[in-house]
Amino acid sequence: MEFAGSHILSVHQFERTDVERIFAVADRMGPYARRRRVTRVLDGAILGSMFFEPSTRTRVSFGSAFNLLGGEVRETTGFENSAIAKGESLYDTARVLSGYSDVIAMRHPVAGSVAEFAAASRVPVINGGDGSNEHPSQALLDLYTIKSELAGRGRGIDRLRIAMVGDLRFGRTVHSLSKLLCLFERVQVTLVSPGELRMPGEIVEEMRRAGIEVIESDALEASISHVDIVYSTRIQEERFGTQAEADLYRGRYRLNQSIYTHHCEPNTVIMHPLPRDSRDHARELDDDLNDNPNLAIFRQTDNGMLVRMALFALTLDVVEQVDKHARDVNWYTAGRF
Amino acid sequence: MEFAGSHILSVHQFERTDVERIFAVADRMGPYARRRRVTRVLDGAILGSMFFEPSTRTRVSFGSAFNLLGGEVRETTGFENSAIAKGESLYDTARVLSGYSDVIAMRHPVAGSVAEFAAASRVPVINGGDGSNEHPSQALLDLYTIKSELAGRGRGIDRLRIAMVGDLRFGRTVHSLSKLLCLFERVQVTLVSPGELRMPGEIVEEMRRAGIEVIESDALEASISHVDIVYSTRIQEERFGTQAEADLYRGRYRLNQSIYTHHCEPNTVIMHPLPRDSRDHARELDDDLNDNPNLAIFRQTDNGMLVRMALFALTLDVVEQVDKHARDVNWYTAGRF
Amino acid sequence: MEFAGSHILSVHQFERTDVERIFAVADRMGPYARRRRVTRVLDGAILGSMFFEPSTRTRVSFGSAFNLLGGEVRETTGFENSAIAKGESLYDTARVLSGYSDVIAMRHPVAGSVAEFAAASRVPVINGGDGSNEHPSQALLDLYTIKSELAGRGRGIDRLRIAMVGDLRFGRTVHSLSKLLCLFERVQVTLVSPGELRMPGEIVEEMRRAGIEVIESDALEASISHVDIVYSTRIQEERFGTQAEADLYRGRYRLNQSIYTHHCEPNTVIMHPLPRDSRDHARELDDDLNDNPNLAIFRQTDNGMLVRMALFALTLDVVEQVDKHARDVNWYTAGRF
Repeated sequence: MEFAGSHILSVHQFERTDVERIFAVADRMGPYARRRRVTRVLDGAILGSMFFEPSTRTRVSFGSAFNLLGGEVRETTGFENSAIAKGESLYDTARVLSGYSDVIAMRHPVAGSVAEFAAASRVPVINGGDGSNEHPSQALLDLYTIKSELAGRGRGIDRLRIAMVGDLRFGRTVHSLSKLLCLFERVQVTLVSPGELRMPGEIVEEMRRAGIEVIESDALEASISHVDIVYSTRIQEERFGTQAEADLYRGRYRLNQSIYTHHCEPNTVIMHPLPRDSRDHARELDDDLNDNPNLAIFRQTDNGMLVRMALFALTLDVVEQVDKHARDVNWYTAGRF
Repeated sequence: MEFAGSHILSVHQFERTDVERIFAVADRMGPYARRRRVTRVLDGAILGSMFFEPSTRTRVSFGSAFNLLGGEVRETTGFENSAIAKGESLYDTARVLSGYSDVIAMRHPVAGSVAEFAAASRVPVINGGDGSNEHPSQALLDLYTIKSELAGRGRGIDRLRIAMVGDLRFGRTVHSLSKLLCLFERVQVTLVSPGELRMPGEIVEEMRRAGIEVIESDALEASISHVDIVYSTRIQEERFGTQAEADLYRGRYRLNQSIYTHHCEPNTVIMHPLPRDSRDHARELDDDLNDNPNLAIFRQTDNGMLVRMALFALTLDVVEQVDKHARDVNWYTAGRF
Repeated sequence: MEFAGSHILSVHQFERTDVERIFAVADRMGPYARRRRVTRVLDGAILGSMFFEPSTRTRVSFGSAFNLLGGEVRETTGFENSAIAKGESLYDTARVLSGYSDVIAMRHPVAGSVAEFAAASRVPVINGGDGSNEHPSQALLDLYTIKSELAGRGRGIDRLRIAMVGDLRFGRTVHSLSKLLCLFERVQVTLVSPGELRMPGEIVEEMRRAGIEVIESDALEASISHVDIVYSTRIQEERFGTQAEADLYRGRYRLNQSIYTHHCEPNTVIMHPLPRDSRDHARELDDDLNDNPNLAIFRQTDNGMLVRMALFALTLDVVEQVDKHARDVNWYTAGRF
């Protein structure tokens, strides 16, 4: 695809070469995200950050990524008091607000609404999550993390063996990641969930059509013995009618250091889209894994910066200029990464 | 007036030459707002954005305008948890907060409170709307749009023929625009509203005293046949006691392409302060006007950037330095305007 | 202490030389805060501003201070919708969010939580208030103000005579200031409060152990006759069960110009952490003091900028570079200070 001026709305818009292009640019963002260098390539540019549904982590990650490229951020959060509540169409909102920035990152609770907004926007729009539909930058950062973690072992994403564990029905991130994996060769995906929280059938079908070997299971230990990645997820309690219903599933799959030691291969990487639920009745990833060097969950969020910087650099077409506007960092940065 | 260091509180503080000065500066902001050039003239300056009442559009417009001049924005929104709730006077709030910025843009639900705040502020304050009282930057951007739309026809604001339609009682923007029009010659204003929502008598009187020909009507079609501008407004439902009461008036005046074609002159410009109410029971400006090249509603909001940039440049006295701190834009900007 | 990379969590972490170092750096920030000069030393750096409890004044002060050094601010306010509500530990929150910024300023309603967060953070954390526990930057700006106000009289903090008046039980600022005063010589502290709102015994003990002469009283006039500073405080109504309970104490001690003239020494400095309660039933500092040149309450908040700039410059280790990245201000600044 041609990135300059494009919206980033869905993982389905990418071919394999597009993903590889994004990852190549993300690699080049490392020195800036790690504070070895500062670049001001987007000095003067404005990101419109519009989160019609709260998400501290994603919102701040987009904003900081834009700041790291030298740009400014104008934020809008919340929904109740907006013009939309006074009957304004998304078309009007998009026409107006896209006149105030150079690129927009947007989250919205209604599936499809970010694409509807983008259709009327005069600047590129990056989907930061539209309901249970899409969250492409999360899927990209997950896949980029898989690539990075396996690179040290001389492995690529082809032939990946991954177990996805937990709430696979409501967990948007595993849906998007599954779709992205369809672009790669000889992938094996093991889906571990309670029967009621299985991965939607159409996604399983999409994976199988793409040549992915899909195994479904409801047992944790047996499913994580021969995988490169265990991708754990939280029970999406906000999608259930009651806490009691969520409690039926919470705590069903708990990975801790003991289970890891007894069942996983020595270098199995542990991922999670975060937040992980650390309350006693949940603990899908126990705190005793925090010292395990294969716990990659915080490298994941760090990688989110690289991927989002790459998406901005690509849609605003400044990839080749990033290094030209760079200089040394002159403040304390020890211990940062 | 002398702009440097001045507050911008009311349209009444302007003489005609002041308005013309603001518009001349706004014209010079075009290349920056349209992303042909970037200026950093206010690099290091801080805008204190204080919206004690929500307004996404106005808040973001002020903030982005300041960013376009190179400055930073520190925002405060909401009211409930502020020091004011603990008994702090507006005087104290102003003394404190004006120490944190170089200029302030403020909205407040109580009429007169922005002026009270400004009296204690140590930096210039721009009124972003104080209850049903004043919203000078909106009136200026409306008038600037009128000027710009008519300029292509070799016309100025003198001899303007304009119809204001809808809720003229509670619509703050038509009040302020009416006052500004008093500065110009041989203007004709047609006021179209239900009897209960007529323009306040004192504003009608003010216009007549200034020499404006004012016609009042409750019929749409007959009133828009010989005007340069139709300025449509939303029913301000939040000012009514109940939705049922608002429903009495909502949908009363609906302008659509068919009515436009049959009743308006070929080049009549359509304006609206936005948001327009696009729900079925309202639709004061139908979506089928979206392809009409004379629909100027999004040019209005774009012009808001120019006017607000001009107000910042004037009150901070950097007009003549804007171009000296300019350089080319190095990111993707196609399709922006 | 070594400031570079350190957290600023408690006044107890400072020795006298540390306080003097902070104040010396704060002195050097004056030209930038007063807009004589602009520095861009932190151009490219990001402050993560995390206010899990609202505080307009402190939040904006930290943000503007960082902007004055050239850095960017990414803000998070509120608590309800955050990942923490989904069961995320402070450890996880800190690990994630500290990857998005170079330094963090944080307020949290729970005592000790900022320190817990800091323990997992990869960047320096500055405590902006953790419940009723600590608020070190406020204590520092109070003490810096005392130093500055007395400097013109050839006095230092040693031998200070200060009266603290009002709600000494719940007022966090007087607790922290008392602790800081323990670092100085021959200080005399008079505590004026209703019996029920006395300074906690352990803090009185700490002061006495440090050699401070502590006098307790419940009478205002007699206690302010021979002091350099009267430090007045608001009744912390939000800490009482009911407004009726707060009303028992509100308005008990009212300092106004008449009392000041009759009872204070001619140059006695009046301080207050703000907000002061200007409602009729409170008025601990009457508005008729506003023209008294010894009313230092707004110099206090201005000094907050200097002290917070100093804390950022020290923890990010750029003190010696601030002046190297400086240039003249090119916008209107008259009347600022």
